[in-house]
Amino acid sequence: MSTQPARGMRDFLPEEVRRRQYVMGVIAEVYERYGFEPLETPAAENIETLLGKYGEEGDKLIFKILRRGEREGTGEADLALRYDLTVPLARVVAEYRAKLPKFFKRYQVQPVWRADRPQKGRFREFYQCDVDAIGSRSMAVEAELLAAASDVFARLGFGDFVIRLNDRRVLNGLIDASGVPAELHDSALVALDKLDKAGRDGVAAELSSRGVPAQAAATLLDCFGSMSASGTNEEILAAYGRGLRGHEAGGQGLADLGQILALSASTSAAGHIRLDPSLARGLSYYTGAIMEINVPHLAGSLAGGGRYDNLIGMFLGEDVPACGISLGLERILVVMGERNMFPPSAVAAPADIMLTVWNAQRLGETLALAAVLRKAGLRVDVYPEADKIGKQFKYAASRGVPFVGVVGDDEQAKGVVAIKNLATGEQTPVPRDQVAEFVKAGR
Amino acid sequence: MSTQPARGMRDFLPEEVRRRQYVMGVIAEVYERYGFEPLETPAAENIETLLGKYGEEGDKLIFKILRRGEREGTGEADLALRYDLTVPLARVVAEYRAKLPKFFKRYQVQPVWRADRPQKGRFREFYQCDVDAIGSRSMAVEAELLAAASDVFARLGFGDFVIRLNDRRVLNGLIDASGVPAELHDSALVALDKLDKAGRDGVAAELSSRGVPAQAAATLLDCFGSMSASGTNEEILAAYGRGLRGHEAGGQGLADLGQILALSASTSAAGHIRLDPSLARGLSYYTGAIMEINVPHLAGSLAGGGRYDNLIGMFLGEDVPACGISLGLERILVVMGERNMFPPSAVAAPADIMLTVWNAQRLGETLALAAVLRKAGLRVDVYPEADKIGKQFKYAASRGVPFVGVVGDDEQAKGVVAIKNLATGEQTPVPRDQVAEFVKAGR
Repeated sequence: MSTQPARGMRDFLPEEVRRRQYVMGVIAEVYERYGFEPLETPAAENIETLLGKYGEEGDKLIFKILRRGEREGTGEADLALRYDLTVPLARVVAEYRAKLPKFFKRYQVQPVWRADRPQKGRFREFYQCDVDAIGSRSMAVEAELLAAASDVFARLGFGDFVIRLNDRRVLNGLIDASGVPAELHDSALVALDKLDKAGRDGVAAELSSRGVPAQAAATLLDCFGSMSASGTNEEILAAYGRGLRGHEAGGQGLADLGQILALSASTSAAGHIRLDPSLARGLSYYTGAIMEINVPHLAGSLAGGGRYDNLIGMFLGEDVPACGISLGLERILVVMGERNMFPPSAVAAPADIMLTVWNAQRLGETLALAAVLRKAGLRVDVYPEADKIGKQFKYAASRGVPFVGVVGDDEQAKGVVAIKNLATGEQTPVPRDQVAEFVKAGR
Repeated sequence: MSTQPARGMRDFLPEEVRRRQYVMGVIAEVYERYGFEPLETPAAENIETLLGKYGEEGDKLIFKILRRGEREGTGEADLALRYDLTVPLARVVAEYRAKLPKFFKRYQVQPVWRADRPQKGRFREFYQCDVDAIGSRSMAVEAELLAAASDVFARLGFGDFVIRLNDRRVLNGLIDASGVPAELHDSALVALDKLDKAGRDGVAAELSSRGVPAQAAATLLDCFGSMSASGTNEEILAAYGRGLRGHEAGGQGLADLGQILALSASTSAAGHIRLDPSLARGLSYYTGAIMEINVPHLAGSLAGGGRYDNLIGMFLGEDVPACGISLGLERILVVMGERNMFPPSAVAAPADIMLTVWNAQRLGETLALAAVLRKAGLRVDVYPEADKIGKQFKYAASRGVPFVGVVGDDEQAKGVVAIKNLATGEQTPVPRDQVAEFVKAGR
């Protein structure tokens, strides 16, 4: 029988758990500092809660759980594994509306499951890390989300991150104002999303093939062409204003972008935000500001999000304002690993010191010494058997433990512990009551 | 459509998540101090990994996941949700044997899923918290596990916990030495397990109905009758010695019990261990020492475990020594809630201070002040909209935030922030650069 984890899923051995916990800890600490609160929902949802929420392709990727008992044989499913953290949030907002604060700011870091074909960096069980602020249309929400994400990336060591910012209403407004027929707006948006990669000619061809009239396509592309990728935020705002030709919804988006920039001037996001006309974020459900966070020399983004005022109310049957950012936790972990960005605390040895056992009769004394050191705050491993002392040292070295303590007959007589620093090889007799300090000083 | 969580599963709103994280944090910190390391395995396992491992009843309670794609219609399952943390540990030990240390000490705190009928305090998704030390038969392992669990319970505020300790080989030895035929040993153990509740007569009746000869039953019950529940550990060790009449395996168990007591004399478990002849731990897979942790005025235990040398090697086809304790995390949380045992840090307000917004034009200044306070380590919430100030105060009070900061026109002119302590009602003008200290001092 195979003892590998199920296809596309991963075991996390201790070193890996430590790295993951470090990143999740930074994320939680930063978001708590912004007044966001933790939420957890069950791994399984009633199947009706999930089906139909992710499109036809999404439905196929949902892991479904067989009914149990007499109905197991029917092959019917009544439950399904969580596919994202947004639908459960919408359910929670509907279920506990009376208990939740008017402005519900939650972060949620939990696994989701998708029956995708596994490939490098894509798993069937992976963590999502979603941060959403529900209940307000104020641009303070966008500004706070960008500031918090900035703090997270700065704390993790991505000092040079760039926040790309845009607005769906501006994009739609530019498309509308260029004379693209209403029924082709979405189509044009999808084409424009590729401006980065396909270039003007590529997008022109796609717009044509999607049936956008040549004149409208040319106006639209001229408008985008007039906005240099290296334009300042002010230049892009001005170009947006010209292209929108007084378009009302687009103008509201433009005003909001200006406000986000102004509000961010004295937050952690200051200097990191770049308006990016080519940012469209696919065919997703955004209704206002959209954002992605990138770092140099890395294709793809480490976080993305935006305002989506029409989704969280899906179970309530009404619009509930919402804006959120999803951090690409698995991606962040991969990049931090590749770039050796984990601090020593995240790649800690399994213990600060390992105590050896001189002989079977002395095991109790070893445990007594361990008790004292643990009370002093040290992480202490005890070799459990009275093996030859060399074997015990070898074991400590193989585990990367920095210090080893020995109480031989000599040390016993003198009331000291011989502490060996495995990095330097130096061995020091340390009075029993000073061992904790000695190890802490050398940590 | 219902917006409740699936039957028997729970949403954890922020307050509850904080309480759970507090307990899990204490557990992790203590175990790290004992050199235990975190392990995480996937929620879903290949179905063959789980089936047949938990008996017929257990198999029925496993949540099974439908095959996907073309084979979805067949009603076949290829995956199943994790049912406990022991089988995944056995799989991990087999799969990564070469990478894992010889003495693998792991803790694992993850949810498991069982299709049990939900009832008060019993859920279909619940967390288990398992701590196991693999690879050594030394009684240092048992002693360290008991010491670590003692630290956990003491840290959580259960100062008066009692560790009940016994040994399977001793129980089997006493049964064997009493003349119970070998094929009835398990049967007799199950009957003896009820000595606590059913009393001598009840157990006698059950032994008889299970076919244990009257003479053997009488000898056995005399032996147990001779051990007063209030006997000291020394008295019980002596009674075991008499009852075992030189039984070899039982004698080894007896020696090990003595050693666990001796090794524990200077650990955190000292004074908490009580040998308990009535402790049998059902029909489970234990092969040596067994243990349960109880607190006064609470039926049932908060933790249980023991040595099980024949299980972890199930995928390797060989015996691998192992000893572990499982903490009843969900139970601990319920009891701590009922007894108001959570410290203030675990029932924290969502923020240390909420900043109000004087008017829409001042939103940027509010965010700037928030940025400064967050850099100083405070958890700061910002009211996102320029509502009437009274409404903003009301909101802060409803959320249990201890301080509210206001920068009105007066305060703006004077360079101060009016800080209101919502508990006392007192309002203090504090210079902007001293707000963080002021709030920290009053926290």
